[in-house]
Amino acid sequence: MIRTLIKETSQKTGEQIMVEGRIASRRDHGSIVFFDLRDRTGILQVVLQADMALDLKEEDIVLIEGMVKERPVKMENPDIKTGKVELEAQKIEVISKASDLPFALKDTPELSLPVLLDFRPLTLRAEQTKAIFKIEEEVIDEFRKTLKSLDFFEFQAPSIVPTATEGGSEIFKINYYESSAFLGQSPQFYKQIMVGAFERVFTVAKAYRAEPSVTTRHLSEYVTLDGEMGFINSWTDLMDTCETIIKNIFKRVGLACQDELKLLSSVIPVIEGNIPRIKMREAQQIILERTKRDNTKEPDLTPEDEKEICQWAKEKHNCEAIFITHYPTKKRPFYTMPDPENPEYTLSFDILLRGLEITTGGQRINNYSQLKENIKKWGNKPEDFEFYLQAFKYGMPKEGGFAFGAERIVKQILGLENLREASAFPRDMSRIDSRLNSNE
Amino acid sequence: MIRTLIKETSQKTGEQIMVEGRIASRRDHGSIVFFDLRDRTGILQVVLQADMALDLKEEDIVLIEGMVKERPVKMENPDIKTGKVELEAQKIEVISKASDLPFALKDTPELSLPVLLDFRPLTLRAEQTKAIFKIEEEVIDEFRKTLKSLDFFEFQAPSIVPTATEGGSEIFKINYYESSAFLGQSPQFYKQIMVGAFERVFTVAKAYRAEPSVTTRHLSEYVTLDGEMGFINSWTDLMDTCETIIKNIFKRVGLACQDELKLLSSVIPVIEGNIPRIKMREAQQIILERTKRDNTKEPDLTPEDEKEICQWAKEKHNCEAIFITHYPTKKRPFYTMPDPENPEYTLSFDILLRGLEITTGGQRINNYSQLKENIKKWGNKPEDFEFYLQAFKYGMPKEGGFAFGAERIVKQILGLENLREASAFPRDMSRIDSRLNSNE
Repeated sequence: MIRTLIKETSQKTGEQIMVEGRIASRRDHGSIVFFDLRDRTGILQVVLQADMALDLKEEDIVLIEGMVKERPVKMENPDIKTGKVELEAQKIEVISKASDLPFALKDTPELSLPVLLDFRPLTLRAEQTKAIFKIEEEVIDEFRKTLKSLDFFEFQAPSIVPTATEGGSEIFKINYYESSAFLGQSPQFYKQIMVGAFERVFTVAKAYRAEPSVTTRHLSEYVTLDGEMGFINSWTDLMDTCETIIKNIFKRVGLACQDELKLLSSVIPVIEGNIPRIKMREAQQIILERTKRDNTKEPDLTPEDEKEICQWAKEKHNCEAIFITHYPTKKRPFYTMPDPENPEYTLSFDILLRGLEITTGGQRINNYSQLKENIKKWGNKPEDFEFYLQAFKYGMPKEGGFAFGAERIVKQILGLENLREASAFPRDMSRIDSRLNSNE
Repeated sequence: MIRTLIKETSQKTGEQIMVEGRIASRRDHGSIVFFDLRDRTGILQVVLQADMALDLKEEDIVLIEGMVKERPVKMENPDIKTGKVELEAQKIEVISKASDLPFALKDTPELSLPVLLDFRPLTLRAEQTKAIFKIEEEVIDEFRKTLKSLDFFEFQAPSIVPTATEGGSEIFKINYYESSAFLGQSPQFYKQIMVGAFERVFTVAKAYRAEPSVTTRHLSEYVTLDGEMGFINSWTDLMDTCETIIKNIFKRVGLACQDELKLLSSVIPVIEGNIPRIKMREAQQIILERTKRDNTKEPDLTPEDEKEICQWAKEKHNCEAIFITHYPTKKRPFYTMPDPENPEYTLSFDILLRGLEITTGGQRINNYSQLKENIKKWGNKPEDFEFYLQAFKYGMPKEGGFAFGAERIVKQILGLENLREASAFPRDMSRIDSRLNSNE
């Protein structure tokens, strides 16, 4: 007999079918036992004679044959999509027995973060957890879809790199044969090289940061959605493209993940009209006026500033996202294009969403000599960047790009407390799957 | 004036337009100069007065305004899609000057592999190179598309791992904060864990192998197209799915990449009917009969054997791919399901395409105790696999999966000599972008 998926059972009243899945819950009523059976498509109520139900319990995997029956109206369950039917079991076969669970799966949302992650292979099965990663899947797919529709070429960026791309010490070192290498902090150099060949490119890649501290908004390994665009007219083309991406993502998630959003009590961020674009210095001024907090001399926004300016954008523009532009030159990587009107600042931007940076981008220096000079100014040797520099030596159009953090988008859409919840297998200072000090 | 893409120029006869691109070639004819101008969509002939052409040359980037004219019939160029028109330049603006090239881009196919890769940022721009990565893009996209249509869930696998997944010493070690970690040899454990939650999953991920030798068919970092499937009826379901994937990929590339295939003088592999499936021992017997080479006691096929058995499949079945099944248990990883009819062999398979393995797969052990026993038998400690083992401890359906090497598929479709040609930025013992001994 061929397996019927649970979502199809509503249409099978009176039919003899076979389903396979996990027992999500068991309720004993004397000689009758009820299972909620779960497969990848939904949940179905199964009615069994007590002797058929054996010692079966949560997470055991079974194959059940039986007849689909309509439930009496008063027994219908509006909480599940198959709530008008149930399966009257005639035959049951045990496929796999589960050990006793450390907690009921339905209690997953109440677990502390360490326990949630210690038991990730189990907690991934909870409906609330699956909903998070269903949304991640749609976010990433829509990023790809939008950029393909804008004629961007998808390439595969390498993650083993010979030098630190973005500078700084937050980089993982690899023992590479007789030599050393690093894990790329971003696909930056490679996407710029690819612009030389394909003009518009994107990649879904991993980025690695050896963050020496544990925060709620950093991961040691994360998914970066990177795009780079040649032959731009202006650096504002980059912001326009980002705006299209982010609006498409919200639209897609809103349509494709209605059940998941409901389950997680989340609503898609509001963006009315265009996303506001203000300079970092203007943002600091606004924050000063609103909070009396004077950070107007600081070279960057603090996490509190990011929250405050998002609050302002929401109140003033009914928009939960905002572009912050013109970050100081000395705080950005060597390849960032200075603003010709004031070279202390750059043609760069971040997008903040509900108080957190989810995107960073900007125009790049495309002139070979200027780029080489900047490498020196930033304290590096152009010889170490010879491969990358070829892309400019042999001609490069006016260009720029952007990078979205996939987990951060998901975190902010869902209002998750910790970025780790938005990564199926988060890595940080103290954890790779299991806790790193567990053997101590 | 808004940029017109070159592919659109054929439809713009008599119109005033602006194009941007690189000079692909320059031909001086007295007071007239011809440029072939290249953008991401094609090549266009531009006619200029000699004084406008300045010292412009190959790979310089320019913006040109002018009038699209029909060419006289005898001047048409059937080799390019815009061959019936040309642009009469009225204004030219230099966007970026290129240094002298070390070779003409059109000579890229004649370069030795080390030179091709030393100058990768430049050689990526050659039409023949772009064609390779256009095909890679379609291969990967079709893998995703096919599996989504079969209800597989896409997830993001981590690449930093705590233990060696497949055993063996060919693994890169990372300095991970105060501790150590490794680069994953495959997303195997994570896709199996995800099956516990989503039943059918796939991931496009990186796999890392510290291959201690340089061959034409290995990379230190490669793109793996990984799928895993729960609730299978039989391990042959896995081969059926792989067959669908591979046929869809060939169909898609054949349709979407006609120009690229022609440019690279390649034809899609022939698969008539079903891909033949034979046991490794049968393959060795056939090879013995055909070549008198007796490898019937060997635990694996040699590279020569793989070529020979593909030759046989082509002659006998008019099929350029073949499934080789039932590899010996001791040659496969600990999680591979033994064949119940003969536990010396496994329910595993490879796909060989035109003489090279492009896919490996098989059913996995889904019973917790059996898996734990096997970890011990393979000389490892179950404690080191506790996280992974949770997926089985808490119930796992009958399942299995497969992995395709993206670069290998591209190499075999195109008949490339070396796998490195199918990787934009190949890493091996002696190269990360530049040659590793270049500083010695």
